[in-house]
Amino acid sequence: MGYHVASEAGRLRQVILHRPDLELKRLTPTNKDELLFDDVLWVRRAQEEHDGFAAVLRERGVKVHLFDDLLRDTLAVPEAKRLVLDRVFDEKEHGPLATGHLREFFEDLPAAELTSLLIGGMTKREFLDRAKEPTSVRFHVMDLDDFLLAPLPNHLFTRDTSCWVYDGVSINAMRKRARRRETVHFEAIYRHHPAFAGGYDAPGGFRVWSRGEHDYPSTIEGGDVLVIGNGAVLIGMSERTTPQAVELLAHELFRAGSARRIVALDMPKTRAFMHLDTVMTMVDGDTFTKYAGLGMLRSYTIEPGAGPEELQVSDHAPEQMHHAIATALGLDSVRVLTAVQDVHAAEREQWDDGCNVLAVEPGVVIAYERNATTNTHLRRNGVEVITIRGSELGRGRGGPRCMSCPVERDPVA
Amino acid sequence: MGYHVASEAGRLRQVILHRPDLELKRLTPTNKDELLFDDVLWVRRAQEEHDGFAAVLRERGVKVHLFDDLLRDTLAVPEAKRLVLDRVFDEKEHGPLATGHLREFFEDLPAAELTSLLIGGMTKREFLDRAKEPTSVRFHVMDLDDFLLAPLPNHLFTRDTSCWVYDGVSINAMRKRARRRETVHFEAIYRHHPAFAGGYDAPGGFRVWSRGEHDYPSTIEGGDVLVIGNGAVLIGMSERTTPQAVELLAHELFRAGSARRIVALDMPKTRAFMHLDTVMTMVDGDTFTKYAGLGMLRSYTIEPGAGPEELQVSDHAPEQMHHAIATALGLDSVRVLTAVQDVHAAEREQWDDGCNVLAVEPGVVIAYERNATTNTHLRRNGVEVITIRGSELGRGRGGPRCMSCPVERDPVA
Amino acid sequence: MGYHVASEAGRLRQVILHRPDLELKRLTPTNKDELLFDDVLWVRRAQEEHDGFAAVLRERGVKVHLFDDLLRDTLAVPEAKRLVLDRVFDEKEHGPLATGHLREFFEDLPAAELTSLLIGGMTKREFLDRAKEPTSVRFHVMDLDDFLLAPLPNHLFTRDTSCWVYDGVSINAMRKRARRRETVHFEAIYRHHPAFAGGYDAPGGFRVWSRGEHDYPSTIEGGDVLVIGNGAVLIGMSERTTPQAVELLAHELFRAGSARRIVALDMPKTRAFMHLDTVMTMVDGDTFTKYAGLGMLRSYTIEPGAGPEELQVSDHAPEQMHHAIATALGLDSVRVLTAVQDVHAAEREQWDDGCNVLAVEPGVVIAYERNATTNTHLRRNGVEVITIRGSELGRGRGGPRCMSCPVERDPVA
Amino acid sequence: MGYHVASEAGRLRQVILHRPDLELKRLTPTNKDELLFDDVLWVRRAQEEHDGFAAVLRERGVKVHLFDDLLRDTLAVPEAKRLVLDRVFDEKEHGPLATGHLREFFEDLPAAELTSLLIGGMTKREFLDRAKEPTSVRFHVMDLDDFLLAPLPNHLFTRDTSCWVYDGVSINAMRKRARRRETVHFEAIYRHHPAFAGGYDAPGGFRVWSRGEHDYPSTIEGGDVLVIGNGAVLIGMSERTTPQAVELLAHELFRAGSARRIVALDMPKTRAFMHLDTVMTMVDGDTFTKYAGLGMLRSYTIEPGAGPEELQVSDHAPEQMHHAIATALGLDSVRVLTAVQDVHAAEREQWDDGCNVLAVEPGVVIAYERNATTNTHLRRNGVEVITIRGSELGRGRGGPRCMSCPVERDPVA
Repeated sequence: MGYHVASEAGRLRQVILHRPDLELKRLTPTNKDELLFDDVLWVRRAQEEHDGFAAVLRERGVKVHLFDDLLRDTLAVPEAKRLVLDRVFDEKEHGPLATGHLREFFEDLPAAELTSLLIGGMTKREFLDRAKEPTSVRFHVMDLDDFLLAPLPNHLFTRDTSCWVYDGVSINAMRKRARRRETVHFEAIYRHHPAFAGGYDAPGGFRVWSRGEHDYPSTIEGGDVLVIGNGAVLIGMSERTTPQAVELLAHELFRAGSARRIVALDMPKTRAFMHLDTVMTMVDGDTFTKYAGLGMLRSYTIEPGAGPEELQVSDHAPEQMHHAIATALGLDSVRVLTAVQDVHAAEREQWDDGCNVLAVEPGVVIAYERNATTNTHLRRNGVEVITIRGSELGRGRGGPRCMSCPVERDPVA
Repeated sequence: MGYHVASEAGRLRQVILHRPDLELKRLTPTNKDELLFDDVLWVRRAQEEHDGFAAVLRERGVKVHLFDDLLRDTLAVPEAKRLVLDRVFDEKEHGPLATGHLREFFEDLPAAELTSLLIGGMTKREFLDRAKEPTSVRFHVMDLDDFLLAPLPNHLFTRDTSCWVYDGVSINAMRKRARRRETVHFEAIYRHHPAFAGGYDAPGGFRVWSRGEHDYPSTIEGGDVLVIGNGAVLIGMSERTTPQAVELLAHELFRAGSARRIVALDMPKTRAFMHLDTVMTMVDGDTFTKYAGLGMLRSYTIEPGAGPEELQVSDHAPEQMHHAIATALGLDSVRVLTAVQDVHAAEREQWDDGCNVLAVEPGVVIAYERNATTNTHLRRNGVEVITIRGSELGRGRGGPRCMSCPVERDPVA
Repeated sequence: MGYHVASEAGRLRQVILHRPDLELKRLTPTNKDELLFDDVLWVRRAQEEHDGFAAVLRERGVKVHLFDDLLRDTLAVPEAKRLVLDRVFDEKEHGPLATGHLREFFEDLPAAELTSLLIGGMTKREFLDRAKEPTSVRFHVMDLDDFLLAPLPNHLFTRDTSCWVYDGVSINAMRKRARRRETVHFEAIYRHHPAFAGGYDAPGGFRVWSRGEHDYPSTIEGGDVLVIGNGAVLIGMSERTTPQAVELLAHELFRAGSARRIVALDMPKTRAFMHLDTVMTMVDGDTFTKYAGLGMLRSYTIEPGAGPEELQVSDHAPEQMHHAIATALGLDSVRVLTAVQDVHAAEREQWDDGCNVLAVEPGVVIAYERNATTNTHLRRNGVEVITIRGSELGRGRGGPRCMSCPVERDPVA
Repeated sequence: MGYHVASEAGRLRQVILHRPDLELKRLTPTNKDELLFDDVLWVRRAQEEHDGFAAVLRERGVKVHLFDDLLRDTLAVPEAKRLVLDRVFDEKEHGPLATGHLREFFEDLPAAELTSLLIGGMTKREFLDRAKEPTSVRFHVMDLDDFLLAPLPNHLFTRDTSCWVYDGVSINAMRKRARRRETVHFEAIYRHHPAFAGGYDAPGGFRVWSRGEHDYPSTIEGGDVLVIGNGAVLIGMSERTTPQAVELLAHELFRAGSARRIVALDMPKTRAFMHLDTVMTMVDGDTFTKYAGLGMLRSYTIEPGAGPEELQVSDHAPEQMHHAIATALGLDSVRVLTAVQDVHAAEREQWDDGCNVLAVEPGVVIAYERNATTNTHLRRNGVEVITIRGSELGRGRGGPRCMSCPVERDPVA
């Protein structure tokens, strides 16, 4: 089936994106913080920008899967539909008096509309326009414009919810309440979508490193996971990715022989450094772009231990960070590109995802056009930078890497 | 066994309190908000104040169970110890590399010390003073003064974690992360402590309305539950108590025939109105004390429906609130006592738990001495008010009712 | 000289704009809130968008004055330079040891650079690149990237700092610390720029309703002031505009006979309703566009009283708001346009300055293109809407009206 | 007249305290943060605690002046009354339509009541109970329970608003809006109260280092100023005390020859380290008590320069902090007492003003009883510690030093 991600910067062959839609129209100044966005988006323009991003990928020969197509086709499979609706319509969320009633309504929706509402959410008012009010205390106390089903605007960032590491996929438990329901959608796709179903945890198919939401609070998000090649993985332990999840992933990868080494970075636990890929990404087999303000971090190298379930952990001082990464890659050193600019300008470009580039092949990356200083610096160092617009897309604090989930990528030659 | 709570203001016979200790010494200006306290406490003085509270209860003939005694005796039962340690030492919290190692250390502790640390928490430094460091990424990244096991300072408020409603107990899933681990302690006590074990969900014993933490996010807390008598229960749907939990409790109570009616109030969802009993409590069979700033709330009467699993919900406008309560009590009206004072003074006394009194028999309540205006008002209306000191205790925003869990109380004659 | 603003929607003849520059490059995720911006801007693109705005105005025959041109020419006048530098280099801000030294450096700068730095600010590092460090405690304790002189990014919103009301100008004391220094720049321009100097408070020139920063904390900002015509002024008493400033302005206007009536609205005091013109503007002589979420507000009509220094204030219930405005205009009623859309969408467009349009002549307005629903609604009601881009400009929460200070506008015929 | 403060730990002879009253009854959970308090106080108990504090001082032979007595007697002087009312009833605060009317009401009050209301504030409702409503927009838009005149609860901390340094007093501009109006009260007292008037800036009297509120934003607060003796002053540059104010004070002190050296510490700018005396105070001529979490700070020694208006500033690395202080005292070293306790406990005691002790003579200090660890540590090191209660008083984050303004103190022998 070909699903396998061997690197960060090898030729990219297949990717999952999500085109913004209803769920982003839900953002308001009042709810945006809770939904993890810094500003509201003009959705029509955001769609145009996103179409531009997909077009660039297709021009470069990358096969683009759109997430809502995948989900819609998946929901046509009865078991998948049951898996998702079981998760969404839980009595502990909706109460025993409303849950069944709500679920029936959703059960009967055509697949396309079901998909749209699962992602975009539904208000009480919208529900009452089409269905009868249940005898439910919970329902009664809601205001007409409250969300019966919350929207999932962060589906835009397909990078995080699942991530492919060598010959398998990790279906991730998400840190923030606003993103938890995303996970079951990917779980359903990988288990039941015709393009994946046969391979799920099957011989000749792909492995499954983590099976979703029940791992919470042991959370890991794809933005913190860099498949740097040479059997190594670089992981940021951030606000959203926990050390315990790193340990669990290490166990799985080493047991399967799919990886030999993890380098884990002890990142600041703040929104500004939300995921590792917002401050550091890979642009070639030995080259990274890195935010000046990140500095050097304490790191840990994790390798298989003596016994079958044991791990060996070694500790590196901050100044050894680049060296630890190089060692994991089997290199003497790595090249780290950081544009020289004043601290204010650097902070601005990091905020605008200056480092969040997506490599389509070694030395060729997609970046937001607005980060002119960083882009120029990459070009001067021999990296080809393809720019895309992101005035709207960028307001969720995510760039090309955040908005893409590679499912097939070659090693760097 | 006698465990049965028939009212809010009938003769109180047995109660569970928790004397503050190590867990409150953990509070600092930095962590207090996360731990849900508004200020740090001087623990020695808080203990004296708490001893005064217990003494008043004993003088009035109430049998006082101390929570840590109960927990210590419970942990001597191997099954109980396993139940608690299984919950506390979860790989998803501590990671696969440290969990076993930590658990072994706790397994081997004497019961008294185990009890103290489960409630009071443990820092990495304290652990390393007595045990070897495990090979664990999670352990490595912690600072020496970080909590390996968080303290549970809110055990002081025994009212919330479990609550007795007529002939059964609800072991509650708690809203706030800082309180979740409290639940398993009460679960273990009611299931395994010699004084309760035989009766747990057994004929001749007591019923169990809710079985603990796995109900999350359908949360309910005892501070929101008033057993007002006449087969009725008054519940505040607050920041912490959800409508879905009210529905679930209604099902259980009606199915068992233990109650006939619930009146649910739609409270403001803010910290100032944290639980119903911080703004309204019962001081006699037909009399309430109420904070002036609460106003009148929308309410819902829930009764058994036509079919076995059905409920009937009726909706009352805010001005009907007192009437709905009276009807549930089978009375024409209820008496609601609210001292006349300016809005600033009223807000101050509510903050200081002016309304959070604990009745020991009809018309006799325990209150903090500092709420002079409210106490005087109650006295002028014929209520006997026994005052206790609370300069320190009150800093967690909880008064005598919050700090007590009645397990046996008569009906109001 | 022609400086006179007779209405909100009559033909616009002259306006002051400020093209964004260095001051906006200073914004970072860390300092943006203090500087009153919700997000950082891509300045190059913001300049393009602003150039588009200016071009539309010029095409419509409006004379555009650029603020930095005005300021630069003003600073060539020695008295003006002294006025500004006296304000900026105050010992109470910079300390007795550094103030003189700093001032000398700025004194010696060429006018263009002085202008740029007064608006754009200067860091300690930038200063030390060009000048010697003074013996100053305050200077020593600053970090290299701290601002010695803070940037003034809100100069973009020329509407607020001064506002023309009929035959005079109010040079406003600003509410927020981040904007206070803006005022002296306008004071200097109106007093000393060749285009204004002769007319300042002079016969045949223009009147001066308020003389600047020393009025603090009696603050008023132009975004709250609508010159609705017929000798009437509509003022929002908001987070930034105080009732006492309204009283002072009323005195000045009535004493001069320049206005006969003020209608003051009691607005919510929150950032979302920052200025009246973010929720309500005028598009024709009897027509307003208004945000659905604003609702109806308590209002006050202020008129000259019996004696020379007296005012007469009458109070209107919220439902009388539109009627009070109509009466002030000498009309039976006003037309208020509000697009029907769900509350989330309406909140989004208000946030994106959907109501913040700038009329260039009766029934012809400039609006951001992103507010499609509002724009369509205006068009359907016969208003001509000229759209401009604002993906970047809008991030400071200000639209075409906020970014323009009319200095000459005809009455509506 | 004897007003002269020669040290921090010499025999204390005269002090100004303020007994808490009406102004603290104004605190509510809603307004407390704005009024700079962390919790509401039980005023009756706070008064008892404060009486205990005053009694201890009197027993030690200290003459205690109560601030409200001083203010009341001062307001009997027509010039003083005018000075205060001119400041309080400013048109920019109250508007031109209400100011005169309000002022008349206050003018006519008896001195005792005027004093009480100037300190305790007044609501619109209270005013309307006794006077007619003025025709004022500002007055109309206020709610009945809004403060027409805000209370000044921080008068409790007499240390800050003025501070005596050797043979003069600094009447300080305060950082926070909630405290600004305090200054004019002390200005009036020192200028016009019979006990001070003759000496104010007069030969044989006392010098005046700073003359009050108009110095803002060059603010300094007495909690940051330690008169350590030997012609030296130790000043914390904190959230509230600016370097420019230190420079201005240095000029004044050196010009008069009253001091020879200032050591200025670069403190963290956070509420937890509000003033220097919340983390470090002096208990004897060479001994300090210091919070463990303060660490070592960068410091600056300021001395007279070559010319008359010049200063010489030398910079010390953090590890030189104690040495710089010792040098200023003419000693080889100073003794710094810090109890060994875990970081959580240390943070708790600092929060509870563990370090905020008031020396009454060398080696004898007054401290809150709750800080047992710190008190024991001081005792073990030979310091006599007199404890007072402070369960209520301490909620404003201020201890014995904060609550006292020495006006006469001997040097340490």
